Amino acid sequence: MTAEIITIGDEILIGQIIDTNSAWIAKQLKNINISIGQITSVSDSKEAIRQTLQEAAGRADIIIVTGGLGPTKDDITKITAADYFGTHLMRDAKVLAHVEDFFKQRGLEMLEINLQQADILANSEVLFNDVGTAPGMFVRQDNKYYFFIPGVPFEMKFLVTNRILPILSTLDIGQSIWTQNIITAGIGESFLANTIADIEDALPDYIKLAYLPKYGSVRMRLTAIGQDASALRQETEQFANRIVDRVRSHVISTEDLTIEEVIIKEFAKRNLTLSTAESCTGGFLAAQLTAVPGCSQIFTGGTIPYSNKLKMQLLGVTEATLSSYGAVSEQTVIEMANGSKKNFETDYAIATSGIAGPDGGTSEKPVGTVWIAIAGKEKVITKKCQFTPNRQVNIELATAYAYNMLWNLFHTENNFSIE
Amino acid sequence: MTAEIITIGDEILIGQIIDTNSAWIAKQLKNINISIGQITSVSDSKEAIRQTLQEAAGRADIIIVTGGLGPTKDDITKITAADYFGTHLMRDAKVLAHVEDFFKQRGLEMLEINLQQADILANSEVLFNDVGTAPGMFVRQDNKYYFFIPGVPFEMKFLVTNRILPILSTLDIGQSIWTQNIITAGIGESFLANTIADIEDALPDYIKLAYLPKYGSVRMRLTAIGQDASALRQETEQFANRIVDRVRSHVISTEDLTIEEVIIKEFAKRNLTLSTAESCTGGFLAAQLTAVPGCSQIFTGGTIPYSNKLKMQLLGVTEATLSSYGAVSEQTVIEMANGSKKNFETDYAIATSGIAGPDGGTSEKPVGTVWIAIAGKEKVITKKCQFTPNRQVNIELATAYAYNMLWNLFHTENNFSIE
Repeated sequence: MTAEIITIGDEILIGQIIDTNSAWIAKQLKNINISIGQITSVSDSKEAIRQTLQEAAGRADIIIVTGGLGPTKDDITKITAADYFGTHLMRDAKVLAHVEDFFKQRGLEMLEINLQQADILANSEVLFNDVGTAPGMFVRQDNKYYFFIPGVPFEMKFLVTNRILPILSTLDIGQSIWTQNIITAGIGESFLANTIADIEDALPDYIKLAYLPKYGSVRMRLTAIGQDASALRQETEQFANRIVDRVRSHVISTEDLTIEEVIIKEFAKRNLTLSTAESCTGGFLAAQLTAVPGCSQIFTGGTIPYSNKLKMQLLGVTEATLSSYGAVSEQTVIEMANGSKKNFETDYAIATSGIAGPDGGTSEKPVGTVWIAIAGKEKVITKKCQFTPNRQVNIELATAYAYNMLWNLFHTENNFSIE
Repeated sequence: MTAEIITIGDEILIGQIIDTNSAWIAKQLKNINISIGQITSVSDSKEAIRQTLQEAAGRADIIIVTGGLGPTKDDITKITAADYFGTHLMRDAKVLAHVEDFFKQRGLEMLEINLQQADILANSEVLFNDVGTAPGMFVRQDNKYYFFIPGVPFEMKFLVTNRILPILSTLDIGQSIWTQNIITAGIGESFLANTIADIEDALPDYIKLAYLPKYGSVRMRLTAIGQDASALRQETEQFANRIVDRVRSHVISTEDLTIEEVIIKEFAKRNLTLSTAESCTGGFLAAQLTAVPGCSQIFTGGTIPYSNKLKMQLLGVTEATLSSYGAVSEQTVIEMANGSKKNFETDYAIATSGIAGPDGGTSEKPVGTVWIAIAGKEKVITKKCQFTPNRQVNIELATAYAYNMLWNLFHTENNFSIE
C-alpha cells in the first residue's frame, strides 16, 4: 500500500511558507510501514485540486490532503472535494456544537462563516478536531482512503496522531519497511562510497542504500522493503554491521539521530555538561540542542552576547582583545569559550563569532568569515571558516561545523568508539 | 508562462528532511513574474522521475528539477533524464577541470565516481557550479525549458541566482504578478474576513485575497495577475488601502515582513533596544530575530539560563522566588525580564519559562505550561499559556506569543500607527 500527500495553498507555491507538514506526516506513516510515493503541492484552484486528486488516486491507495479547510473564501478544498466525489456538503450537529463551544469558551462572537466550519462532505466520516474549528474528514471510495485535514501544523498533527493513524493501523498494509541509519563524521561522501563499494554491490535488490551528506557529516540509510519483517531486519542489520566495521572510526551513531542528539546522549552517559556563547549564530546553535527532549541533562545554558559590551560582561572577553583583534577573531572566540566554560562551570563550551551578512564585511573579514572555538576538558580548538554571502546559510553552516568540532574534541578526549 | 518544481529524493518522502528548496526557488521566480503551478516530490526511482517529468511538461513551460545529481549510486537523475530526452551522457572537459581543481585545492584524492560528476546530458548546456562539483544543466526541448540542479541548498541557491534567473529573465513571460501583503495582529481570521467582506466582494476576478493565520497574527495577501504591471499595482494598492483603512488599529505592516522584521524596523526607527531571556524557548526566540539582517541595531543580546543557577547568576532571579514559586511561574519570568532589561541596559526584554515537554510535567504544571513576560519602558506584562504536548510546537507557539505580546506593549507605549 502506498500513500500520497497533497498540500493545498498558494502560500506554498509563491514560497511564502515552507511545507513542513508533509515531512512530518511521511515520518508517521513510515512508522506503520506505509511508504509515500509522491508529495504534491498545488494552488487554491478547483481545477488543480481536482486534477491532483485524480492523478494521486490513479497511483496510490491512501491520499492525505492538507489545507484549504479554513472559514474564508480562499478555502475551497471542501467544495472541490464534494464536486470530485459527486456529493454535497451537510452541516454536522456534533461539529457545530463543538465550534459553538469553541467560540463561547473564548468569549468570541460567532459569525455565519464560522457556522460553515461545521459543514462536512456528505459521504465522509468526521475526524473530530479537538484543537481547532475545522473538522477533518475521511472518505472511502473505490477502495481508496481519502483524508482531508487542516494545514495548521498543530491541528494537522493532532488529527494525524489521534484520528488517521488509528484508522490506517487497522489496514492490511501488505509490506514491511525496515530502515537502518549509520551516521558518520569526518569522511566525504565519495570516499565513503568507495570504501564500502563491495558491500554496496552485494546488496540485494530490495535493500537500497542512500547517502545524505550534510555539512561534514554523512548519513547512510539502508531501506529494505519486503514481506517478512524479521528477515528484513536481520539482513539489513548484517549489512549495516559490515559497513560499521569498515568505517568504524568515522561512525558516530547507528541510530536515526542528529549530531545534537548523539552529543546529548553521549554527554549524558558521562555526566558531561555544555554551555554555548553565540555571537553570529544568534541562538540558532542552542535552539538545535534545546529542540531535543532531555537536553537539560547536559545543557546548563547559553549566552548570545551580540554587543561587545555583553561579550565582556557575560564572558570576560577583555577590552584589549576586542580592540586589538576585533570581535571576529580567534582570540575573541577563545576568550568567549573559556569564559563560558568557567563562568557557567561546564565541561565543554562552544563559541561563535562572525560576519553573518549580508552587510558588515570588510576586505580583511568578508561576509561569511566565522571563527569557532570549542573549549574542552583539556584544551581549546579553533577554526576559521569562510562561508557564503547568505546570512541564513552562514548561521546554519557555522552551527553544523561547531557541532562537528565539538564531536571531534569530545571523541578525542573521551576515547569514544561505537559499540 | 508557468513553472513547476520537481524535487527528487527518498529522504523527502520518508520525512527525513524538509524540502526548503522549493519555497526558496518559488520566491525567486515570483520576483520575475513566473508563477509556480505545482511542486512535486518524488523518489529516487527511474519510473517516478520519468513520469513526473512527463506530467510536468504537459502542464508547464519551465521545469526545475533539484536533487539526485551526486556521485553515489542512489543518484540517478542524470541517467534518467538522458533516457527521458532520448540522449546520452558525455564528459565535459571544462567541468572535469573544475572538479579536478576542486579536489586538488582541498588536498583530496580523486576517485572514479568523482570523474563522473563531469558527465552531462549531451543535449544540455552546462550551468557551471562554482561552489560544488555537480554541474547544473539546461535543456531546451519542444519549447519547454528544463533545468537540473543539485539539491544541496547553497549549491542550488548559487545556480538559481547566477545561472537560471539570468536565462529566465530574457524570456517573454507574458504576464505580470503583483502581490500586496497586509499583516495584522490581535484580530481573528473570521472577524477580519467579516469586517472587510464588502471590499473582498468587490475584488475583480484577477485579484485574489488569501488569509494566512499564524498564532495570533493574520497575513492577508492580495495577488493580481494580468498584462499591465502598473495598472495591476495601482488597483491592488487601492484595495489594500481600503482594507487598511477599515482595520487600521490591527495592521502592523503593509510590507511582506514577519513580525520580527516589523519589530526590528520600528524599534530601529525609535532607537529602542531589546534583550531576551529564554528558558523553555532555548534560543529559538533569539534565532528568529537574529535571522533578520540588521537585527544588531536593536538586539543587544540574550541569555538562555536553562539551569536555575544561571537564572540567578545572569538575571538576578532570587533563590526565594525559585523555591517559593518554581522556575515556571509568573514571579520568575517577571524577575527574568526585569533582570535582562536592567543588566543589559535595554528598553525592552522578553522572558520565557515553561515545560516544553514531552516530559517534566506535573498535575499543577502540565507539559505545555509556559509563562511569558515582557518588560517595557514603563511596565511589565505577563501571560500564562497552556500549549500542547509537543515540544517543538510549544517552543514555536511560545515564541510567536512572545513577539505578539512585545508588539502589543510596544504599540501601546509608543503610540504606533501605520501610515
